[in-house]
Amino acid sequence: MKNNLSLRLDQTANSTQTNDSKEKILTGDRATGSLHLGHFVGSLQQRVKLQHQYEQTILVADMQGLTDNGHNPQKVSSNILNVVADYLAAGIDPLKTTICLQSGIPALAELTMYYSNLVSIARLERNPTVKTEINSKSFGRSIPAGFLTYPISQAADITAFKATLVPVGEDQLPMLEQTNEIVRKLNHIAQQDILVECKPLLSKVSRLPSVDGKSKMSKSMGNTIMLSSSEKEISKAVKAMYTDPNHLRVCDPGQVDGNVVFTYLDAFHQDQDYVANLKAQYSAGGLGDGTVKKILEECLQDLLKPIRQRREEFIADRSLLIAILKAGTERSQDESNDVLRQVKCAFGLNLF
Amino acid sequence: MKNNLSLRLDQTANSTQTNDSKEKILTGDRATGSLHLGHFVGSLQQRVKLQHQYEQTILVADMQGLTDNGHNPQKVSSNILNVVADYLAAGIDPLKTTICLQSGIPALAELTMYYSNLVSIARLERNPTVKTEINSKSFGRSIPAGFLTYPISQAADITAFKATLVPVGEDQLPMLEQTNEIVRKLNHIAQQDILVECKPLLSKVSRLPSVDGKSKMSKSMGNTIMLSSSEKEISKAVKAMYTDPNHLRVCDPGQVDGNVVFTYLDAFHQDQDYVANLKAQYSAGGLGDGTVKKILEECLQDLLKPIRQRREEFIADRSLLIAILKAGTERSQDESNDVLRQVKCAFGLNLF
Repeated sequence: MKNNLSLRLDQTANSTQTNDSKEKILTGDRATGSLHLGHFVGSLQQRVKLQHQYEQTILVADMQGLTDNGHNPQKVSSNILNVVADYLAAGIDPLKTTICLQSGIPALAELTMYYSNLVSIARLERNPTVKTEINSKSFGRSIPAGFLTYPISQAADITAFKATLVPVGEDQLPMLEQTNEIVRKLNHIAQQDILVECKPLLSKVSRLPSVDGKSKMSKSMGNTIMLSSSEKEISKAVKAMYTDPNHLRVCDPGQVDGNVVFTYLDAFHQDQDYVANLKAQYSAGGLGDGTVKKILEECLQDLLKPIRQRREEFIADRSLLIAILKAGTERSQDESNDVLRQVKCAFGLNLF
Repeated sequence: MKNNLSLRLDQTANSTQTNDSKEKILTGDRATGSLHLGHFVGSLQQRVKLQHQYEQTILVADMQGLTDNGHNPQKVSSNILNVVADYLAAGIDPLKTTICLQSGIPALAELTMYYSNLVSIARLERNPTVKTEINSKSFGRSIPAGFLTYPISQAADITAFKATLVPVGEDQLPMLEQTNEIVRKLNHIAQQDILVECKPLLSKVSRLPSVDGKSKMSKSMGNTIMLSSSEKEISKAVKAMYTDPNHLRVCDPGQVDGNVVFTYLDAFHQDQDYVANLKAQYSAGGLGDGTVKKILEECLQDLLKPIRQRREEFIADRSLLIAILKAGTERSQDESNDVLRQVKCAFGLNLF
C-alpha cells in the first residue's frame, strides 16, 4: 500500500514532464490564522518550487475553517486575506498558481453532498486523522456534523480540481485514502473513470516544533514566529527558544536532540555543513546558547525581512488581494462545475 | 411547546390574508417512486387547496432521495418526472405552485454545509424521526453520512425559501424543531433575524394503510394503489383488500376498526353519512365484503380516472414536464441565492 501511495518529492521533482501532461496539485490551508514558520518549512517553500513544475491550485479553506469555528466565524473571515498575503509574500506567483477561495466555489458544496451518500458514519469515525483531531479538541459526541464529515468535503476539493498530487504529511494519508475510496465508488456508479485518484506528495521536512518546544505552534500562545513577525518579535522569540535545560555553562557539553534552536538551524540555515560543525562544538562543550541563538536569529531575520516587507505591501492593498483571490476563484469555478456536471450525470441527474 | 407549534389546517384555512402577506409553504417528496393514494390523502389533496391561499413551493427532493440510494441512483433519477406528472395530474397548478428540483438549486447544498457547523452529531442521533428511520432501514453505524445529516439539508430547504409553514405529520415535528434550532443559532451569529422560524401545518388525515393492512405502502410490494394505476389494477387491489378475517358470512356482524375497506371509504368517499350507514349495517351483520368493496371500487375508479388520464398526457410530453420543472427551479434559484448571500454574510464571507 505504502509503496503505491508514497511518492517522495525528490522523485517527482526529477520526473520530466511536458506542459500538456503537467500533473495537477491541490493544496491549501484552513483560513484560521496567519501563517508561521511551521507553514513555511512544511508547505510554503515546497509550493513555491512546485508551481514551476506542476499545475498548482491553493485553496483557502474558509468553509473547512468553519467546521470547528461555526460559532466564532470571524476567526475565519478575518484571516482569509492574511493567508493570501502570506502566500504572495512567500513567493507564490498568482500567474503560476491558482489561489482560490473555497466558499466561492459552489460546486464544492454540491460535490460534498453527493459524496456524503457514499461514505458511512462508521467510516468517518474510523479515520485516524479525524480521530486524533476529535480527541485533541475534546469534542466527544458534541462534534459538529461539519467537522466529522470534513474528509468528504476534502475529497470534493481534491476531485473538483482533478488533482493527482496532494502534498501532505504522513498523518494526512488517511484523508487521501478516503478520497480515493470515494473516487472508486463514484467511478463504479458512473461505470467510467470520471474522477481521478490522487497520490500523496510526502514532504521530507518533519513538523517544526514551537519555540517553547512543547506545545502546538499558535500565534495566540506566543510560541511561534509568524511570517509577519517584526524584527523585535523574531529576536524575542529566538531568545525565548527552548534549548538544553542542562546546558548551564558554556563549557558544558550540550544536547542537540530536542534542542529547538538546532532544529530551526537545520530547517532554515543555508549552510548545513556549518550547522553540523556547530552541533559538534555544542555537543562537545564550549559553545554557548547565546552564540547559537545569535546565528539563528541572523538567519531568520534575513529570511523574513523581505517576506515581511512584501506582506506589508500586499496587506496595504486590500483590493489587490481581493482581485487576485477573486480571479483565481472564478477560474476554478468552470473546472469544478464541469466535474460536478459529470458527477450529477453519474447519478442520473442531468434533466437540465 | 405543542400549542405554539401546532397549527391545524382548519385554523389557517380560515385566516384571511392579503396577497402581500401570504405565508410561504414549503413541501415536497423524495423522488424515489411515483405517488400513491397515501400521498393523495396525506398531502396532495391538501396542497391543491393550499395553493390558492398560500405561496407554495413543492420541492422534488432528488438529493434527499439519494441519501439512502447512493448506490442505486436510478431509483431517484427515473422517478423525478413521474413525481412531477403526479403533482400536475392531481391538480397542482404550476402557475400557483412553484415545483422545483432540489439538485437544481446549488444554494441548498451550500446552506447545508454552513448549517452543518452548527449541529452536533449527538443532536442528529437524538432526532426521533431519524432514529426510527435508521432502525427501520437497519443501517446501524453503516448509515451513510448524508442520511444522518439530512435534517440539516431539510433545514436548508425550508430556510432557503423563507418558508413559515411546513405541512407535516406528527412524526415529522422533530425535523422542524431541528430547523428552528438552526434558525435561532444562525440569527444569533448574524445578530439579526435573517432566517425565519417555521411552523408545522398538521394534517387532519392519519396515515392511509396499505391494501394488505399490515406493511408499508410500496409499489414494489404490490400493496398500494398508485395515481397511475390502471382500472384493472385498482379493481384487483380493492378485491385483495384486507377486511375483517372473522367476517365469514354476510349475515355475521363485521369489524369496522382496522378494516382497510372502511378506512379507504372514510378517506375517499364523498358522502360520509352514507359511509356511516354502511358501517352500522356491517357491524350489525347483513352487509357482505363484496358489496362494500364494490362501493369503494366505484369511488376510487371515479377519483383516479381523470387523474390517470391527465397523468398519461403529461408523461407523454416529457419536454413539457422538464420545462415546468426547470422554470420552477430557476425561479427558486434567485430566492435561495439571496438567503445564501445573507448566511455567508453572517459568517463574514462576503469578500466578493
